Amino acid sequence: MIDVKLLCKRAKAASLKMAILEPGVKTKALRSMAKALINKSSYIITENAKDVKNAIKKNFSKALIDRLTLDEKRIIAMADSLVEISKLKDPVGQVLETRSRPNALLIKKVRVPIGVILVIYESRPNVTSDCVGLSLKSGNCIILRGGSEAINSNTAIFEILNREALNNKLPDGAITMIKDTDRKIVNALLSQEGLIDLVMPRGGESLIREVSRNSRIPVIKHYKGVCHTYVDKAADLKMAEKICFNAKVQRPGVCNAMETMLVDKKIAKKFLPRMIERFKDANVEIRGCSETIKIVSGIKRANEKDWYAEYLDLILSIKVVNNIDEAIAHIMKYGSYHSDAIVTGDKKAAEKFLNEVDSACVYVNASTRFTDGGQFGKGAEIGISTDKIHARGPVGVEELTSYKYVVYGKGQIRK
Amino acid sequence: MIDVKLLCKRAKAASLKMAILEPGVKTKALRSMAKALINKSSYIITENAKDVKNAIKKNFSKALIDRLTLDEKRIIAMADSLVEISKLKDPVGQVLETRSRPNALLIKKVRVPIGVILVIYESRPNVTSDCVGLSLKSGNCIILRGGSEAINSNTAIFEILNREALNNKLPDGAITMIKDTDRKIVNALLSQEGLIDLVMPRGGESLIREVSRNSRIPVIKHYKGVCHTYVDKAADLKMAEKICFNAKVQRPGVCNAMETMLVDKKIAKKFLPRMIERFKDANVEIRGCSETIKIVSGIKRANEKDWYAEYLDLILSIKVVNNIDEAIAHIMKYGSYHSDAIVTGDKKAAEKFLNEVDSACVYVNASTRFTDGGQFGKGAEIGISTDKIHARGPVGVEELTSYKYVVYGKGQIRK
Repeated sequence: MIDVKLLCKRAKAASLKMAILEPGVKTKALRSMAKALINKSSYIITENAKDVKNAIKKNFSKALIDRLTLDEKRIIAMADSLVEISKLKDPVGQVLETRSRPNALLIKKVRVPIGVILVIYESRPNVTSDCVGLSLKSGNCIILRGGSEAINSNTAIFEILNREALNNKLPDGAITMIKDTDRKIVNALLSQEGLIDLVMPRGGESLIREVSRNSRIPVIKHYKGVCHTYVDKAADLKMAEKICFNAKVQRPGVCNAMETMLVDKKIAKKFLPRMIERFKDANVEIRGCSETIKIVSGIKRANEKDWYAEYLDLILSIKVVNNIDEAIAHIMKYGSYHSDAIVTGDKKAAEKFLNEVDSACVYVNASTRFTDGGQFGKGAEIGISTDKIHARGPVGVEELTSYKYVVYGKGQIRK
Repeated sequence: MIDVKLLCKRAKAASLKMAILEPGVKTKALRSMAKALINKSSYIITENAKDVKNAIKKNFSKALIDRLTLDEKRIIAMADSLVEISKLKDPVGQVLETRSRPNALLIKKVRVPIGVILVIYESRPNVTSDCVGLSLKSGNCIILRGGSEAINSNTAIFEILNREALNNKLPDGAITMIKDTDRKIVNALLSQEGLIDLVMPRGGESLIREVSRNSRIPVIKHYKGVCHTYVDKAADLKMAEKICFNAKVQRPGVCNAMETMLVDKKIAKKFLPRMIERFKDANVEIRGCSETIKIVSGIKRANEKDWYAEYLDLILSIKVVNNIDEAIAHIMKYGSYHSDAIVTGDKKAAEKFLNEVDSACVYVNASTRFTDGGQFGKGAEIGISTDKIHARGPVGVEELTSYKYVVYGKGQIRK
């Protein structure tokens, strides 16, 4: 087994140098990395094809293969993210608050990097470059631990990025990739309290639960994305149809896709037949509540488990609710506090929903698919959090910082 | 044993109501609480005397008895904190950031309460009222678990505050005190993931380590306060003497008191004799490095353990260092990243120290004793953090919030 402690110590030592890097050095490195990804895209695609071939051989789900696959377009998107990140304001050293006290002490709350961040992830190889970009910009060192199913893609991307890091004189240890896919290594990493400062697991619920259970280091995470769209009685039904279709069908294998659609009883008969027809045309399997199957025939009945389910596939559960309170109660009971939307023309209903649904991201009249670092203007995300501590929703460069209090005195003592 | 789950469920349910309380209701409740503490101060002192008597009987340390004891002055300070907290800006609903995206999505990052906060603490009974004040102001529910050594004081304070909470129509469950001092209850509390959102342990290192080890819920903490003052070669030595004396002697039993004094070699001969004389006059036991004992005779030699020690008593270790780099290296190796100060007239040295010492609070020309929510203008603190996740330094009402993203659309879908 590789020497995990040694790698972590190297990262910790590098983190002190990373914290005081000139902003211009980071910008330049990020842009070189973006260029290198484009220049080497055919190499990345060749390596990725090996992973995809293995995944098909192993009979992995469609959603997983979708998340795993890279093409020219997705590589351009990875490079674009790095460029976007390079353009963001450098968070390190930002003064968040200044307080002048009656005794003339001057107290500044100043952003500082967190230190060393460990990302444990599955399938999506674009995570590799997004995490490198965000950690570099925020002055953190990163340790990457991708899944075995994407090892060829991740290694290719890491090597391209790391070469640019070294060319741009980032400290040795700024980016570390654990290429050994032995699962024991994960537990060894999770016990490096004092060397690693934060763990971000990304992937299936079982991976994330295992990481949370075994970690001695703080973890920021979401277990799953059971996202809802509630079509209110005051909704513009054409808009609702467009939003719900997008939230379910545009990319069903991701955490911000809709899993349950809630429909107000008062518009259900008008809305559901056409909406369901459109879903069926797109090969979406519908599982409906007792009301739904009364309104539209030939639908499978949803059971209790369906309301908790994150399908990550072309499956949708539908429930007719009596009113907005029932919709909110359903979301609070069965949801995962990730992303939930209301479609309504009624401002009061919108405000009620936005206030009372205690999710990381709450929407009015938009698709839940927008919960994404790039879409939020953060360039990318190192993960999405449904926790309430430290960061919530898409985690970008600002959320990858901590702060320190810097206190300027003139000889003040405590009375 | 009491039904821990039931108490936590009640708190969780109350937290939904707390989150949407009118700011005025909170202000009024806080002021009633402050008044009630003053009005009932003789009752509190009587109850406190029972705890102090027990502590003396059990031969507890001077530092502990100091932290435990309440007098009229300390009760007034508790009430003042509640009034200070009532005057702070209400953090709930504050818009931290607004982003308008190219697709016209409007994204607001809005402060929300965390939910239910558990504070596990030892000795200091003022923690009871500080925590109630801060959690109320930040829209959180609180569960208090004080130590058996302060049970009479804590119960008296809790009952006074809870009566005012109910008089002011706060939801039932806003403030919970666990009066049963059975240690098993702590573990039962620490496994209420999903009902309790955050744990703040306050007390000795062993308590905090035990809480961290056993908690399924995120913990914000500091293990200990090994605070340093470095007297630079460019220090105003009179100022340095005043600051170091204050940092050690003014209240030695607390976490922001100085435990180790570092002195630049170039001024050690001039500075140390007088400084040590002053410490000795105040009954401070000195443990010096080899250089220190050469300069001043009759001093105990410090050993390796002393540099790591949090004495919480009238004991001080002193080390002569060759330069600022050695001072910083010493702090990074032996310190606890709590509060560290430099005394210097040299701006460059100050900036170097402030940047490179990676502690929650870094000072130039002031006593480390200022690391305190009240002194920082936060009214009080629910704890002090040396972690880097979520909050660092004194934790006040702003740090007791999370945020949510509220997204306003007009039918936008993801392309």
